[in-house]
Parts: sequence; structure tokens; C-alpha cells
Amino acid sequence: MQAIVDFILEVDRLKAVTRKIRLRDSDRYENSAEHSWQLALLASSLAPHAPAGIDMDRVIRMLLVHDIGEIDTGDTMAFVEGGWEERKAAELAAVRRIFGLLPASEGGPLLALWQEFDDAQTPEAIFANAVDRAMPVLLNLANQGQSWRENGISHERVVRRVGPPIEAGCPALWRYLEVRLAEAREREFFGA
Amino acid sequence: MQAIVDFILEVDRLKAVTRKIRLRDSDRYENSAEHSWQLALLASSLAPHAPAGIDMDRVIRMLLVHDIGEIDTGDTMAFVEGGWEERKAAELAAVRRIFGLLPASEGGPLLALWQEFDDAQTPEAIFANAVDRAMPVLLNLANQGQSWRENGISHERVVRRVGPPIEAGCPALWRYLEVRLAEAREREFFGA
Repeated sequence: MQAIVDFILEVDRLKAVTRKIRLRDSDRYENSAEHSWQLALLASSLAPHAPAGIDMDRVIRMLLVHDIGEIDTGDTMAFVEGGWEERKAAELAAVRRIFGLLPASEGGPLLALWQEFDDAQTPEAIFANAVDRAMPVLLNLANQGQSWRENGISHERVVRRVGPPIEAGCPALWRYLEVRLAEAREREFFGA
Repeated sequence: MQAIVDFILEVDRLKAVTRKIRLRDSDRYENSAEHSWQLALLASSLAPHAPAGIDMDRVIRMLLVHDIGEIDTGDTMAFVEGGWEERKAAELAAVRRIFGLLPASEGGPLLALWQEFDDAQTPEAIFANAVDRAMPVLLNLANQGQSWRENGISHERVVRRVGPPIEAGCPALWRYLEVRLAEAREREFFGA
């Protein structure tokens, strides 16, 4: 029991990992814990548009743990280029440390879920990655492009970066977003 | 698709609902969205101590939605007495409004999960309620009783209020907490 308590108090620190996007209702920047919660809800709401036969419960569990490595590394915006391998190695070391606080029977499956998300090969992981890429786009569309403008991100760069993974995991969502992103360009929601 | 987007942007507001307990790593008060995320992880970590045959995926989905009514009503501390029926009616109206943003095929099951948690009758709901009651206790134990001291909550009141639901849902967790709560009383973590 103490191992479980140590683990859950350690992951509390994900609430203090700040992302680049602000909440709709306040000027506070979003943190990675509440982001993970929202992704789990978005995934389950998208069920009618998810690939047939997908195990949605595994998607949800994957999304709940996919950012835990950021406790040691911090959030990296999806648009940063370079240094990718080093950051991935650091995140892997972090999740090994953190899931290693649990007994192997519990920590092992969580590490496997994290790895599955990161590898993005199974239908569940491809869908989960689509959801992870789509949520900040939805918030930016509702937010006059706040994080795109603050970070100098162009329409072209967003489409190039998030289009392929969202289309691969949830084509109906990408068809929706593509139209909204074009409208957002007209409204000058982008930073470059 | 627009209905799903409207829903996920509406629930973003749960990130702005403030609870009475602070994060371990900062002075910021916790919000109900990141709290919901942490409960889902605590539940799944407690699997070896959960009742046999429990559907953990339903527990996780229940915990992800159990606080959504607070978007309209705000968080009510577990120790507030009185006005319970009025608050429950207001929360029910809130979740009907919010889950009603989704198509009935998606919103209906979410409302049923919220109701199941609130009724606290099924094994999954009894376990989920235990997890919900235990998490602030774990944070307070790690936090020198911050929210107990700030709100004048006594050891006796904590034990009376959270003991029965935690013991009903996860006896091993209550055995652990009972000892820690007695130690915390010695260390003057309580407010009255």
C-alpha cells in the first residue's frame, strides 16, 4: 500500500507541469494533468468516429499516463524541432523511475501503455495520438489561436505537424479541423 | 462532430473549479479536472486491493465524469453539512445540461455513469467513492494537514466522514489510512 501511495503522490507533480495553452475560462496556462483528463473524455466522446473494434478503455488508460514522463522533463511543445531523441530518452528514464515506484504487477502494464502510445503503432495508440494532437487545436480555435500567436506558429506548420497523425487516427475529426483551420487562417489566428 | 467539440470545450471549465487542497509542488489550489485525473490513476493502482471481479474500466470512466456537475455549482468540500439535497439537484441539472450537449448515444452513458457514482450502490461506484474520499486524505497527510487546518476540520470529523465510505470500498486502504490519521493527530495536522 505504501508503494501505491508513494506513486500517487509522485504523479501529483504532473499538475505543476505547464503547457503552452491557456484555459478557456482564465489566463492560467494548462497543466499536463488536467490535459490528460480532457483527452480521456475527448477520446470517449469520439467513439462514434473511432476505428471499428478499437479498445476504448485501453485508449483512455493510455491517455491518462502518456505525459507522466514530463514530471522529470517538462512539456515540450509539439512544434519544437530537434533534440527529439534526447528528450524521448529522458522521458523513458522518467517513466521507468515513476512507474517503478509501483509493484511490477501494476507498474509494468503502465509502462507498457506509455510505450504503446509513444510507438504509435497499434490502432489504439494511433487513435490516442490523434486525440492528443487535436485537443490543443480545438482549444486554439476557441481561443483566437492564443498559443499559435504567442509562439509564432504558422497555419502551414500546424497542418503539416498535426494533419497526418489526426487523419491517421480519426479521419472524420481531421475533415472537421481542416475546414476550421482554413477559417482560422482567414481570421489571422496564426503567428507567422 | 460539432456537438462533440462543444462538449469538450464546455468541460474545459472544470479546470477552473477550485478545491480546498493545494498541490504538493506549489501553493496553487487543486482543480477538479486534475483531481479527476489523479483519481483514475489511484483507482487503477489500487487494483490488487479492489474487490474481486470489479470492472476497473467502468470505475475509471466514472471517476473521469463524477465532478462535471461542479462546472455549474462549484466544489463543495466533503465536510460541509446541510444543503445537500439542493446541491445534488443543482449538480444533476448541470450534468443533464452538459452531457446533453452530446448526441444521446454518447451523453446517455456518461449521465448513467455520473448517476451510478452518485448513487454509490454498485461495487464499482462504492470503490470509486472510496478512491474519491481517500485522495484528499493522502494529500493532506503529505501536506501537514493543510486543508484540515485551513478549514478547522478535526481528526474525529475526518474519521467519521471518510472512514465508512473508504472501508466499504477498499478495506485495505482504510486500514492503512487509519494508522496514518492517528499519527497525524499526534503531529497536530488537524484544525480543531
